[in-house]
Amino acid sequence: MKELDIESMDFKKGGGLVPVVVQDSETRDVLMMAYANREALQQTVKTGYAHYWSRSRKTLWKKGETSGHLQKVKEILVDCDQDTLLYIVDQTGVACHTGEKTCFHNRLK
Amino acid sequence: MKELDIESMDFKKGGGLVPVVVQDSETRDVLMMAYANREALQQTVKTGYAHYWSRSRKTLWKKGETSGHLQKVKEILVDCDQDTLLYIVDQTGVACHTGEKTCFHNRLK
Repeated sequence: MKELDIESMDFKKGGGLVPVVVQDSETRDVLMMAYANREALQQTVKTGYAHYWSRSRKTLWKKGETSGHLQKVKEILVDCDQDTLLYIVDQTGVACHTGEKTCFHNRLK
Repeated sequence: MKELDIESMDFKKGGGLVPVVVQDSETRDVLMMAYANREALQQTVKTGYAHYWSRSRKTLWKKGETSGHLQKVKEILVDCDQDTLLYIVDQTGVACHTGEKTCFHNRLK
């Protein structure tokens, strides 16, 4: 596994943002998908807790800041194109704002 | 788990596309992230094999069509906002064009 730093990430392709897939380190469930800009990624690395960029509110956002449902980031993986991230997290409480454990709680017929 | 149909997907937010997270049904590794338009999703449902929309080539794309690295889709999950998909797949061969099993084969320092 190659080690990369933040500067190797390609934020340009997504207009300053990269998608972040979030996986639970214990259950290995995919919990959610969100977006990070450079600052959100820097804050995640610095604090050890997942930060994202809210596209609707146009603000930096610490996951769980109000709900308490923090995500402690154990590992940050980077894809082959360096334009997508995978956070492996210890999830406090639930990941989804609906109260479900994971945001992927619907099935396509 | 709620059952949804294709019509309930929100393709508008992403300009006709939704991100698709792909997870291996056996190893539970996150394999890749790609995009689907309505047609790609319809083809996936119809054939049982993962289809995506290539943003760079602007074409519908069947994963593994040339490499043989097909993805048999066992389950399609939909997130709470109905704007992101999770394909649970049986991966033939490897998911990444580099020859690695998963596209997430780099670690952020």
